Amino acid sequence: MISTRSYSLMVHGGAGAFENLRAPECEAETIESIRRILEDGREILQRGGSALQAVEACASLLEDDPLFNAGRGSVLNEQGRAEMDAAIMDGRDLSAGSVAAIGEIANPVQLARRVMSESGHVMLIGEGAVRFAAQCGIPRVPDAYFLIPERIEQLKEAQKKLQTLSDKKNDGHEFGTIGCVARDIEGNLAAATSTGGIVNKLSGRVGDSPLIGAGLHADNETCAASATGHGEDFMRTVLCKMISDYVYLKGMDAHQATAAGIDFLTRRICGQGGVIVIDHAGNCASGFTTRKMIQGWIERGAGTIVRI
Amino acid sequence: MISTRSYSLMVHGGAGAFENLRAPECEAETIESIRRILEDGREILQRGGSALQAVEACASLLEDDPLFNAGRGSVLNEQGRAEMDAAIMDGRDLSAGSVAAIGEIANPVQLARRVMSESGHVMLIGEGAVRFAAQCGIPRVPDAYFLIPERIEQLKEAQKKLQTLSDKKNDGHEFGTIGCVARDIEGNLAAATSTGGIVNKLSGRVGDSPLIGAGLHADNETCAASATGHGEDFMRTVLCKMISDYVYLKGMDAHQATAAGIDFLTRRICGQGGVIVIDHAGNCASGFTTRKMIQGWIERGAGTIVRI
Repeated sequence: MISTRSYSLMVHGGAGAFENLRAPECEAETIESIRRILEDGREILQRGGSALQAVEACASLLEDDPLFNAGRGSVLNEQGRAEMDAAIMDGRDLSAGSVAAIGEIANPVQLARRVMSESGHVMLIGEGAVRFAAQCGIPRVPDAYFLIPERIEQLKEAQKKLQTLSDKKNDGHEFGTIGCVARDIEGNLAAATSTGGIVNKLSGRVGDSPLIGAGLHADNETCAASATGHGEDFMRTVLCKMISDYVYLKGMDAHQATAAGIDFLTRRICGQGGVIVIDHAGNCASGFTTRKMIQGWIERGAGTIVRI
Repeated sequence: MISTRSYSLMVHGGAGAFENLRAPECEAETIESIRRILEDGREILQRGGSALQAVEACASLLEDDPLFNAGRGSVLNEQGRAEMDAAIMDGRDLSAGSVAAIGEIANPVQLARRVMSESGHVMLIGEGAVRFAAQCGIPRVPDAYFLIPERIEQLKEAQKKLQTLSDKKNDGHEFGTIGCVARDIEGNLAAATSTGGIVNKLSGRVGDSPLIGAGLHADNETCAASATGHGEDFMRTVLCKMISDYVYLKGMDAHQATAAGIDFLTRRICGQGGVIVIDHAGNCASGFTTRKMIQGWIERGAGTIVRI
């Protein structure tokens, strides 16, 4: 059943991060930030803004908040630099834009949007993407913008611990991403993701966040989904597209499709992470294999809920 | 029905390329090359080699043949350099490896295989990927290896024509890719893709070839698929994963799933290109929206067939 002229909005701030990474005193601050960002998104959707506008705006706000591993708060790579990935997808016509391994851009999701609308391509990476940003008039920010004391400390710790880590996959550092999905009052769906990736990562490693179908997907006929977790697991299962296919080919709603997707992730590859999903009827669902996922939502115009 | 201990193998050399690009006299040479490569792949599968070995070997041979737009025969980017993408996927455990925007590597598909087995990641791009190649002992080849007179000529022509092209999408130059899918006698599936991308492309543009789910997919429970065509169309539809989901969620065979996938590609976004598919029972199928696709196959150990 398609509900009439109601909007839905979901954001996430990563899965598992709180298990190893953060002090409990950050939780209240994180909840407050997510709540504020959802209210900003609500304003856009309430006055008839598009799902695409809402996910770009909310993802940009998450990128601006140093609490989250994306944009300003991106973790640093092996070279001590922010090397970011982001993507955006419009469920109306399946158009999409994506950037990977870029530095010096404050809001990678906004560059992804320009790739979608102005490049004639879907994905631009590295220096080529940064040159395209210049053509679009998007200013470069200095490296110092990303050099937050907490992130420098985190990199030092990761580099110290590296020798003693037997299983990097279980390290909570990996699970930081932000994402957003929305349904506007016209029934259009959109999704966006953004991340700084993994602390101390190999330069050139790309995770699921900028990959259409893996880290995000949006199709008006099915659902909008955004993933967070061990990126490689979502790439191998192409999980956001698979959840869309559960809706398309099995007639599932957001809850059923999310559960089926997480089941597949677990059964086939013991994958780790989570996903937020809004279906074409505006139902909001989430699923995760980690102990926690930072998430908040507004379901069909109702009150704002935030969970960690 | 799973057939017993028989192998199947398919390769493609791009869709649409012959429409605008090549003289008819190249056709015989291309058919002969595809036939030889299939026979080499047959030898591997016949003596019990794995599907993964077969697709890596066949993709490497296609990369070595300057007739095809991959490896040695890669078209040149705006800077006059080969900038290549490749990926490989193992249907046994959904493990995958991918490289994008790399130069100076003779066989990108072999580097993708090493990313899969040795990096702990799925995707490495640009300089980071080339540094990883050095760690693996894969030698760099000089730029001159890729500077085939035909490709230099092609770049010059493309740069001359650029101002007069109203719709770049319809230019046959874009449709060069190689791909391979196989089922071994144990019933394992694998897929590989490799490409030089688009003539005169923006440095940093990544197409579907290195993207798991878009340009290729392999899952022992469903099928192995490899795509070629207008890369952005396959990225937006995540078509190879979708074909796998048609098998998984609808119980379709390779023929039905391929037809359903091509239908979706056409209906939703007027996408252009083609795909080769082998399902878990060893059935071989292909589908394309272009007038032609260069392809060859061996179905359940039978005789070699090549079509353009």
